[in-house]
Amino acid sequence: MAASKGSRIASLILRVLTFILIFISLLIIATNSKTILQGTVSETKVEFKDFYSYRYLLAAAVIGAALSLLQIALAIYSLVTKGEGTPLFDLFSDKFLSYLLLSAASAGLGAGIDLRVSFKELVGNFFNSFFDKGSAAAAILLIAFFCAAIVSILSSLALIRKP
Amino acid sequence: MAASKGSRIASLILRVLTFILIFISLLIIATNSKTILQGTVSETKVEFKDFYSYRYLLAAAVIGAALSLLQIALAIYSLVTKGEGTPLFDLFSDKFLSYLLLSAASAGLGAGIDLRVSFKELVGNFFNSFFDKGSAAAAILLIAFFCAAIVSILSSLALIRKP
Repeated sequence: MAASKGSRIASLILRVLTFILIFISLLIIATNSKTILQGTVSETKVEFKDFYSYRYLLAAAVIGAALSLLQIALAIYSLVTKGEGTPLFDLFSDKFLSYLLLSAASAGLGAGIDLRVSFKELVGNFFNSFFDKGSAAAAILLIAFFCAAIVSILSSLALIRKP
Repeated sequence: MAASKGSRIASLILRVLTFILIFISLLIIATNSKTILQGTVSETKVEFKDFYSYRYLLAAAVIGAALSLLQIALAIYSLVTKGEGTPLFDLFSDKFLSYLLLSAASAGLGAGIDLRVSFKELVGNFFNSFFDKGSAAAAILLIAFFCAAIVSILSSLALIRKP
C-alpha cells in the first residue's frame, strides 16, 4: 500500500507550496481595506469583514493552513522513519483540503468580480482596488487548490497496490 | 480492481441523483429574471446574464450535466455487461465533476449573498427575490456536489485491490 518515495517527496513539496500560498492569501485578505472620504468629515471604511465571501475565505484559509501544516508534519515523520505513511488519512484530508480551498477561492472570486462591477455602476470607481486585492487573494488560493488537487490525485493513485 | 456490485449500484443511484439536481439547478438559474419599473416608462431587467458568477454557474451546470450523463451511460453499460468498469476514468471524471460543481455553487452562493446585501443597501429591496432564486439554484448545485463527492470517495476506494 506504501507509495513510492518519489511520489511521497513530490507530495511533500506540493504540500509545502500549498501552505505558503494559503499563508500569502491569508495575509492579503486580512490586511485588505479601503477608506473613502465622504465630503470632509465622514469617511467610509470597507474591510474583508463587510463581505460574507471574504470572511468565509479567511476562515477557510485559516483552517486550510492548519490542516496543511498537520499533513506536512505527518509526511516528514513518515519519510524520516521510513514508515508506511497514512494513506487513508491522506486520501480524506487531501480531498477535504482541496474542496475547502476551491470553494473559498470560488466564493471570493465570484463575489469580488460581480461586486466590483456593481459598485462601479452604482457608486463609482472608489472600491476597484479593494476588490482587485480581494480577487488577487482568491486567485492565489485557487493556485493553492491546484497544488492540493495534484496531491489528492497522487494520494488516490497511491492506494493502487503494486503487484 | 473491480468494485463490488453494491458499491457500483450505490454509485449509479448517486450519479442519477446528481444529474437530476444539476438539471433542476439549470432550470432555476436560466429562468431567473426580474423586471423593475422605473417611473412609468423605462424598466430595468436583470437576468443571470448580468452577473459573471451566474453565467459561470450555468456553464458549469451544462458541462456537469453532460459529463454526468456520460458517467451514467458507462456505469449502466458495465453493470449490464458485467464488465470490469472504467475505474481510472471514474476516478478522474468524478474528481473533475465534483470540483466543477463545488466551484460553481460556491461562486453562485458567494456572489448572490454579497450582492443581495449590497443591492439592498444601495438600491432597495427590489432585487431580493432575484438573488434568493439564484442562491437557491446554487444551493441545489451544492447538494449535487455532495452526491458527486460521495461517488468520488467510492471510486477512490474502488482502486484498493482486494487481496
